[in-house]
Formats: sequence, structure tokens, C-alpha cells
Amino acid sequence: MQIAILLYPGFTALDAIGPYEMLNALPGAETVFVAERRGPVRNDSGRLGLVADAAFDEVTRPDVVVVPGGPDTSGPRDPGPVRDWLRAVDASTTWTTSVCTGSLILAAAGLLKGRRATSHWLALEELVPYGAEPTGERVVFDGKYVTAAGVSSGIDMGLTLAGRIAGDRAAQTIQLLTEYDPEPPYDAGSPEKAPADLVAEWRAKGV
Amino acid sequence: MQIAILLYPGFTALDAIGPYEMLNALPGAETVFVAERRGPVRNDSGRLGLVADAAFDEVTRPDVVVVPGGPDTSGPRDPGPVRDWLRAVDASTTWTTSVCTGSLILAAAGLLKGRRATSHWLALEELVPYGAEPTGERVVFDGKYVTAAGVSSGIDMGLTLAGRIAGDRAAQTIQLLTEYDPEPPYDAGSPEKAPADLVAEWRAKGV
Repeated sequence: MQIAILLYPGFTALDAIGPYEMLNALPGAETVFVAERRGPVRNDSGRLGLVADAAFDEVTRPDVVVVPGGPDTSGPRDPGPVRDWLRAVDASTTWTTSVCTGSLILAAAGLLKGRRATSHWLALEELVPYGAEPTGERVVFDGKYVTAAGVSSGIDMGLTLAGRIAGDRAAQTIQLLTEYDPEPPYDAGSPEKAPADLVAEWRAKGV
Repeated sequence: MQIAILLYPGFTALDAIGPYEMLNALPGAETVFVAERRGPVRNDSGRLGLVADAAFDEVTRPDVVVVPGGPDTSGPRDPGPVRDWLRAVDASTTWTTSVCTGSLILAAAGLLKGRRATSHWLALEELVPYGAEPTGERVVFDGKYVTAAGVSSGIDMGLTLAGRIAGDRAAQTIQLLTEYDPEPPYDAGSPEKAPADLVAEWRAKGV
């Protein structure tokens, strides 16, 4: 089972690494980080470089695709190599997935038309012009398309998908070994729970 | 505020990226991934390369150090460059932290003597020979030493530390923007909660 995780300049690291850590632990999983060209790809802050071990033309039939988001996805949303590669590989994937604003990249490639999908809470409405139906849920399955909400939700997406692929016990094993028993020190992780003025501040600012 | 995240061959990616994503979002934070030599460092599966942008001799006075764990930490626990660097920078850090079996690396460097500390649940007792006092808590503060339990707990550690450094509102902002409102699809994230036979299986196997 080949799992291809897309990298592009400006991706958010945890969007990629959350699902990676959940899915790569599956028996038989072989993950490859893929980008337009081989070599290091810088993240949204520029402080982190993750190596793409394969270029698009080397990964033609992945079973699972994971598309991370980032604060600015205008590049990979434009017509070009990312879009072309996503459309091509989606034709034969078992699962096509995204985290955070990665869903906007899938949507821009025309892959979420008429599908229920989620995204970062500040970006949900941007799904609409692409014909997707935004929902505020944390992990959304619609057929083979699986989208997750902001950044950290990729862990929940990855673990949920691990269970669908390999069964509950395999997923529970991954949860136990990654000690995924979260204890956030605050309860501000969604716009419904965070202080209202903080939410308003960021709705005004955007990401 | 310089945050130095240690890389060594065989590190677990989420151990490094969880705290990175929480701490690098702090105002004024400048994260640097550091290793014995500059260049890509491979993770525990070998499927992922993360770039060290600085060598040890280029990072001499970080404010915060983060030490990720991995399934085999015998290399960085041995006398050598990792230990020497940790001891040298610890002399002037504000916070010295670890995730998962990263605490064994700190402990082997002699930095956790007489300190309460945590680690991956399968590795907790390995702290004892180094003179640390293991606790089963998810995030443990003892003076400037902050240790986190297995893999995913680095997110809770990073967010808790973000609050200590910059206040509750700054940490809540990070939680909101990373949408850290976890919804694990199973409740098997700790040895107390996972199916007993699964825990027994892994206690027999070790990591």
C-alpha cells in the first residue's frame, strides 16, 4: 500500500506529519513524500525543510494520497503540476485525503464537486465556489474522499482512516503506541469553544 | 527566543513536529532544527528526511531545547556529540524539554537526576537507572525540565509550555489556529484505556 504525501512550498508541517505518523504504521504501508521535484521543500514558516524523495512522475499509482494545507494555497490551487498530478493519481487511488486547507487544493482540482468536505474553520466557505459542500465536522468521509479540519485534525483523520483500512485493532495499536490520549491544557481548539473575542479577531484578520 | 529542535538518525517525526507547530507560532520564536551535521536526517522508518539547518557548533545558546524520542535512542544516549551538545546548551537554556523516549536521552546526559520525568509508557522504567523519578503523567514540569509521554503528547507539552512562556491567550490562539480540539475515533491511547490484551502484547514485545 503506497501512501503519497504531497509537499509544496508553504505547506504546514503538522498537516503532513499527523497523518504520516498514523498511516505509515499500518502493516504493509510504504509512505513516500512527493513534490514537483525531488529535494527539500520548505514549510509555511520557512524554518523547516522536509525532503521529497520522489518527483510527481515517479509516483503514478499511489493507493492513498494526503494533501496537507497551508496558510497560502494559491500556488497549488492554480493550474499547474500539482493539479495535474492530483487529477492523474486520483483516477486510481483508494483514498484521496486532505488536511486543513488541503481540501481547497483538492477542490480546485475539481475533485470535491458535489462532495461534503471540511477545511480549516477560517477557510470553510472557500470550498463553496468549487462546488463542494462545507461541513464543520472534524473528519468528513464522502466516498473515497476524506477531508479533515485544521492542522491537528489530520491525526484524527489518519487514525480514523487507519481503522477503515486495517480494522479497529490495528488502529488501536497505533493509538496506543503513539500514546494518543490528548489532554489539551486549554479548551480553545474550535471557534465554538475558544473565547468569542479571539474568534472574532481572527475572523476579521483571516489566516 | 531561539527554539532548537534536535534531530538524530531514527527520531520519530511527530515527536519533533508536534512541539514545533505549537512553539514556533509564539511571537518572536525562531526555531532551528539542529543536528551533528547540517543536512537531511532520516526518521525512524527511514521514509522521511527532515533538514537540519544548523550543526551543533552553530547553536550554542538556544532558549528552548526540544529532544524528540525514537524507538532506538541508544546512539544519542551514548557518550558523543549529542550528549556533549545537550550538556553544553542546557547550561543556559530557559527550558530543556523532551518528547517520548527523548527523556532517556536527557537522562543519559545526566540532566534529569533527581527530577520527576515521563517518557513513552513502554520506556518509563528506563529512566530509573539514570536517577530520574518516572511518573505516568502526560506532561511533567520539574523546574526548567519539561518531559512529555509518547509521541503525540508533544503537542500537549508544546501548548502547555507556550502558555507558560507567553500567557494563556497566546496559547489559546495557537490552539484555535491549529484547531486542536482532538476527537480520537478510539479510546486506546494509554495503557490504562487500551484493550488489556493489546497492552500485554506490547509489554511483552517492547517497542
